[in-house]
Amino acid sequence: MRMVDLIEKKRDGHELSTEEIRFIVSGYTKGEIADYQMSSFLMAVFFQDMSERERADLTMAMAESGDQIDLSAIEGIKVDKHSTGGVGDTTTLVLGPLVAACGVPVAKMSGRGLGHTGGTIDKLEAIDGFHVELSTNDFIRQVNEHKLAVIGQSGNLTPADKKMYSLRDVTATVNSIPLIASSIMSKKIAAGADAIVLDVKTGEGAFMKTEEDAKKLAHAMVGIGNATGRKTMAIISDMSQPLGFAIGNALEVKEAIETLQGKGPEDLTELCLVLGSQMVVVGGKAKTLEEARAMLEDVIKDGSALEAFRQLIEDQGGNPAVVDDLSLLPQAKFVTELPAKQDGYISFMEADEIGTAAMVLGAGRATKDSVIDLSVGLVLHKKVGDFVKKGEALATIYSNTQDLAECQEMLYNSIEYSNEPVEAIQLVSALITD
Amino acid sequence: MRMVDLIEKKRDGHELSTEEIRFIVSGYTKGEIADYQMSSFLMAVFFQDMSERERADLTMAMAESGDQIDLSAIEGIKVDKHSTGGVGDTTTLVLGPLVAACGVPVAKMSGRGLGHTGGTIDKLEAIDGFHVELSTNDFIRQVNEHKLAVIGQSGNLTPADKKMYSLRDVTATVNSIPLIASSIMSKKIAAGADAIVLDVKTGEGAFMKTEEDAKKLAHAMVGIGNATGRKTMAIISDMSQPLGFAIGNALEVKEAIETLQGKGPEDLTELCLVLGSQMVVVGGKAKTLEEARAMLEDVIKDGSALEAFRQLIEDQGGNPAVVDDLSLLPQAKFVTELPAKQDGYISFMEADEIGTAAMVLGAGRATKDSVIDLSVGLVLHKKVGDFVKKGEALATIYSNTQDLAECQEMLYNSIEYSNEPVEAIQLVSALITD
Repeated sequence: MRMVDLIEKKRDGHELSTEEIRFIVSGYTKGEIADYQMSSFLMAVFFQDMSERERADLTMAMAESGDQIDLSAIEGIKVDKHSTGGVGDTTTLVLGPLVAACGVPVAKMSGRGLGHTGGTIDKLEAIDGFHVELSTNDFIRQVNEHKLAVIGQSGNLTPADKKMYSLRDVTATVNSIPLIASSIMSKKIAAGADAIVLDVKTGEGAFMKTEEDAKKLAHAMVGIGNATGRKTMAIISDMSQPLGFAIGNALEVKEAIETLQGKGPEDLTELCLVLGSQMVVVGGKAKTLEEARAMLEDVIKDGSALEAFRQLIEDQGGNPAVVDDLSLLPQAKFVTELPAKQDGYISFMEADEIGTAAMVLGAGRATKDSVIDLSVGLVLHKKVGDFVKKGEALATIYSNTQDLAECQEMLYNSIEYSNEPVEAIQLVSALITD
Repeated sequence: MRMVDLIEKKRDGHELSTEEIRFIVSGYTKGEIADYQMSSFLMAVFFQDMSERERADLTMAMAESGDQIDLSAIEGIKVDKHSTGGVGDTTTLVLGPLVAACGVPVAKMSGRGLGHTGGTIDKLEAIDGFHVELSTNDFIRQVNEHKLAVIGQSGNLTPADKKMYSLRDVTATVNSIPLIASSIMSKKIAAGADAIVLDVKTGEGAFMKTEEDAKKLAHAMVGIGNATGRKTMAIISDMSQPLGFAIGNALEVKEAIETLQGKGPEDLTELCLVLGSQMVVVGGKAKTLEEARAMLEDVIKDGSALEAFRQLIEDQGGNPAVVDDLSLLPQAKFVTELPAKQDGYISFMEADEIGTAAMVLGAGRATKDSVIDLSVGLVLHKKVGDFVKKGEALATIYSNTQDLAECQEMLYNSIEYSNEPVEAIQLVSALITD
């Protein structure tokens, strides 16, 4: 088999065999296929796409390119959730306890990462004493006992994907549905997921700018999941404005606890109920999405969702009292209101810019070596469609500095007004279940 | 400027500016742009094509990437001819003297190359004493005095094209009209041509398998020529069977001399008259193709075309007596007829296979280090459409070995018969003049 012939085959729109796809992925991972052949192949894929079978083969070849987490010792269907990113996305903190309380085992491997705020692990570390360094045995025992554990990323997972992603980044081949879909799915499968729920974000602040592209990506991932024996569902949700009100690590933990108490922001609550319903269904604990939603609403009402979060904190060394006393979370020194400069209906809030305003305060990492300030961030008071009067607070800024000029300017620039009433944004625009 | 942005721009079907194309070609030649970015870009060009302006810019950027031959000291419009390759293509040997005799200056830079038979220089070296090592001053003086000189390739011409071609060869990006067209044209322009005539071959033995593709390539090259101020014309000619009768170095020199005497094979003569007419017109020595053709027929009839060949041989150290006494050319030891095994109309002669049969005898180079036997080769006696009787000679084999089994088998395999009359193949199927 020669790589040049396989490039030509894909270039001319023919389907590659399972063996040919394995040859490409394993040859590239081992360095036997050169970058210049791989990049030319990836560009051919950009133009010629891949069949559902090819996508599944590519996903499995990447999943098997390095270490694979064996979660077979955990009873039940292990469900993982993936979001394609966004600003102020607190859903993982809420969903874990929520579906665990419904009996779905959640063995979450999570990261830190770059961005507007920290990753799930950074957020959890805002809870005094919380740690994610568990042995594999303790991790598995904890999920079997309490249905929920969070561990840091370790091992050499999907090296093929890492190498391919670095190449795609510099050869204009990132933006290809089969390549994005197989990259995401390979990581979930290597991490041991039996079933997967996907939140594909769309809008200004998201990777997929249009709903059409978001749907294509969602269908591609659900297709891969089903072809590889991992029951998969997806939703398309808006990310043109931040989700929830809080952006910042401790602030998002607080918002997550409030949401588990049934007192969270409407949009965040709704998104968690929609995603959670899919997780409960693919996890085999309910037959229909309606049945699952009722279960989720019950575990919020009866306190067992909050209890699952308290148990997680206790299991992983954190102070569980935080659940009843939010003032135990890290507090910023300065709390400053951001007053509106004019009357009007809010017509646009640029999620990305607002996220960057929080990062400027220290809530996120600009580079790998940045140190996160867990206490700082923003709490918004308004959403698109809301009317605001001049002088009314648009947001509250939590900071450890009094020099807020840059942050404030970014926030003012991120908001647009209209004199006419503006419709609220529909959060979830599509459910993709097969 | 970042290469990744330019790849994306081309990928998305946008037109690159002159400056952007220069950045890509010069960056790649200098090694500042990596192979993996270039190959991804080339694949994007494969799918998105290039506008006429982009093709012209790419051609000029490649032409200017290394040494450029300055022929400005030669009076008149310097015309170069390029053929996209084929089997038994003796046209260069005939065309040089033919158009020189009409007053068109031919400053030919030629190569050896791999293939069924040697390159133009190998063929000319079948003439005792002929050499192509001329100083630039002697080369220019000879063209000014006698309108015709042939020199070996020297200098570092179009390094960008060489580097890009090597990369295309292993990344399935060879077969792209804008890339093939700019590669050919950049070499002709760097070699100093003011005007260019192109013979684009089509059919089984050719690079362009279909007439449609051949026409696209011809139009692309004529477009580039006109956009870069080099008057360019092209023809599409058949290469499904060998051109002329002779395949082999000394044998082709003999055939060229016979053609200049007006006694050559019909198809070779016709092709030389058609290409020669275009060369005389773009060289400014005639207004119409008809007028040019009449001039070419005259210089054959009155002996001045043959005289120009004799002068070339004399100027470059060869024995000019060869023109009157063809037995002075290298002679093979064994001359063997190849008898037909059956009666029938010849319906197919596979040019490529016949060429390889000549190479097996030693007429061409299989690798760079092969030594050519100038005396050996084939002379065909039949063409597609001819009727042949069992036992009649299909070809004569000129060899220095009596072990002809492999050569004979290839020849027999290359010919197909029909019981019904078969139409002769039309040699020139299209003229592209603008």
